[in-house]
Amino acid sequence: MLQDRFVPPGNAFTRRVTVRFSHCDPAGIVYFPHYFDIFNGLIEDWYEQELGYNYADLIMGSHYGFPFVHIECDFKIPSRMGDIINLTLLVDRVGRSSLGIAIVCHLDGLERLRARMVTAMMSLETRKPVPLPPALREKIEAYRLRTTSG
Amino acid sequence: MLQDRFVPPGNAFTRRVTVRFSHCDPAGIVYFPHYFDIFNGLIEDWYEQELGYNYADLIMGSHYGFPFVHIECDFKIPSRMGDIINLTLLVDRVGRSSLGIAIVCHLDGLERLRARMVTAMMSLETRKPVPLPPALREKIEAYRLRTTSG
Amino acid sequence: MLQDRFVPPGNAFTRRVTVRFSHCDPAGIVYFPHYFDIFNGLIEDWYEQELGYNYADLIMGSHYGFPFVHIECDFKIPSRMGDIINLTLLVDRVGRSSLGIAIVCHLDGLERLRARMVTAMMSLETRKPVPLPPALREKIEAYRLRTTSG
Amino acid sequence: MLQDRFVPPGNAFTRRVTVRFSHCDPAGIVYFPHYFDIFNGLIEDWYEQELGYNYADLIMGSHYGFPFVHIECDFKIPSRMGDIINLTLLVDRVGRSSLGIAIVCHLDGLERLRARMVTAMMSLETRKPVPLPPALREKIEAYRLRTTSG
Repeated sequence: MLQDRFVPPGNAFTRRVTVRFSHCDPAGIVYFPHYFDIFNGLIEDWYEQELGYNYADLIMGSHYGFPFVHIECDFKIPSRMGDIINLTLLVDRVGRSSLGIAIVCHLDGLERLRARMVTAMMSLETRKPVPLPPALREKIEAYRLRTTSG
Repeated sequence: MLQDRFVPPGNAFTRRVTVRFSHCDPAGIVYFPHYFDIFNGLIEDWYEQELGYNYADLIMGSHYGFPFVHIECDFKIPSRMGDIINLTLLVDRVGRSSLGIAIVCHLDGLERLRARMVTAMMSLETRKPVPLPPALREKIEAYRLRTTSG
Repeated sequence: MLQDRFVPPGNAFTRRVTVRFSHCDPAGIVYFPHYFDIFNGLIEDWYEQELGYNYADLIMGSHYGFPFVHIECDFKIPSRMGDIINLTLLVDRVGRSSLGIAIVCHLDGLERLRARMVTAMMSLETRKPVPLPPALREKIEAYRLRTTSG
Repeated sequence: MLQDRFVPPGNAFTRRVTVRFSHCDPAGIVYFPHYFDIFNGLIEDWYEQELGYNYADLIMGSHYGFPFVHIECDFKIPSRMGDIINLTLLVDRVGRSSLGIAIVCHLDGLERLRARMVTAMMSLETRKPVPLPPALREKIEAYRLRTTSG
């Protein structure tokens, strides 16, 4: 199988995650739903550490939710306990109330898996989509631009 | 939003799952990685109850694994604690060593989410794909035929 | 090691749980936090199926919570993928707002683990303990009496 | 309720953990089984970062397991999304093949919960307890001594 090389754009938000015992299944590799939980944590950290938003406040304080409307993921190379994997978050698309994110898991320059996730901002009270607040949208758009190669 | 109606084919493998407190997040809806864990359980039950294979034996005894190579999922209607959702498993495609499965979550004739998942049978020893054993393939193909409408 | 025999009292609430692939760790046995999640599910089922209370309504409708204040657990025999374990719920003690529960996991007459858990009923609004409603307390007390041997 | 103050011994292994959205339940507080998963991660980090052992190698390489034989936990103050809690690991007792650990979760000098956990070292092949290797035991004992106040 041809392997996919991946080098994250210089300014991309990347975090290292140690694969734990608890992530792994009896076959010794990461049980796949854990990846999605790890991705959700990465998105939280990106809001806080890259965009400067307090994720807990957005949800508990402002009563916004960010449910996923679409997810797809290609699993290419399994990860095992003790692996220290890198996760890079890229923005695919900023819509009116939706946000398309790519998360690439990589190690030693090889892609291990790649997910594309679309989330929609919604009010937890009306349960309807709400437009992304302009300040937030601007920050996300700026992030997208500075992490788009070429 | 136009809602998607869903009526499972008569012979399709369908199981009811109660949405538990532990499935739900602070917004009161199912935290999405739990769906994938629920799907994995449905697939195990399908192997055992529909195809007549002991899933634990396949993995621990015969040292086969069924890692996912691709997953996609559309989330349409959120589910809340106490909802009793229906999950129907359909077979999209039977490959040489791979299997394409669709799982539809539905309630009251409406699709709540739909996942497409591709799994590959592999040897846990060589970590390489292995062809589906003929007897297993035959059972899966027969299931596919009897659950394909039209 | 001397093994502990266990026969549940005749009227005790017992449910069978299949140990799934996803419950197990790289050592092939149940990863212990999953037991606590399984116990929480058992308690939900007990409220609904034995006491006749809708657990989701109690929490989402009446804004009560049942946080644990104390848990202890002895792990005696590990369980593996495919094991169909039995879980029996017993009531140790009914307090003013607290409830002491024992959960015994057993198979073939042998105790595999035993947990004691104390939960307190509280208002999600005031975040203070509230007395168990008399009707609920009565049902729990009746359950305790009919499942106490001797 | 009288609150328990806690100041960790100077040399104690302490890590900060951000309470995530995914840790929390519909009541907005940490769903308790997640604490045990977090504790397990803390113990892994302690082996690696404090004792200098590669936890993955111990388990996957040397085929040792560290199953818990006893756990108890008092939950005192709930934690919510966004809280940055501190977790301190203390050693209660070093036995022949068993290890008694205390984990204290604290914030702003107040104990939020305290767990006592007993783990036993065992061979994954024979499934029998094995004595702690002398070098490991020595390091644990030294840690215990330098973190025991008084």
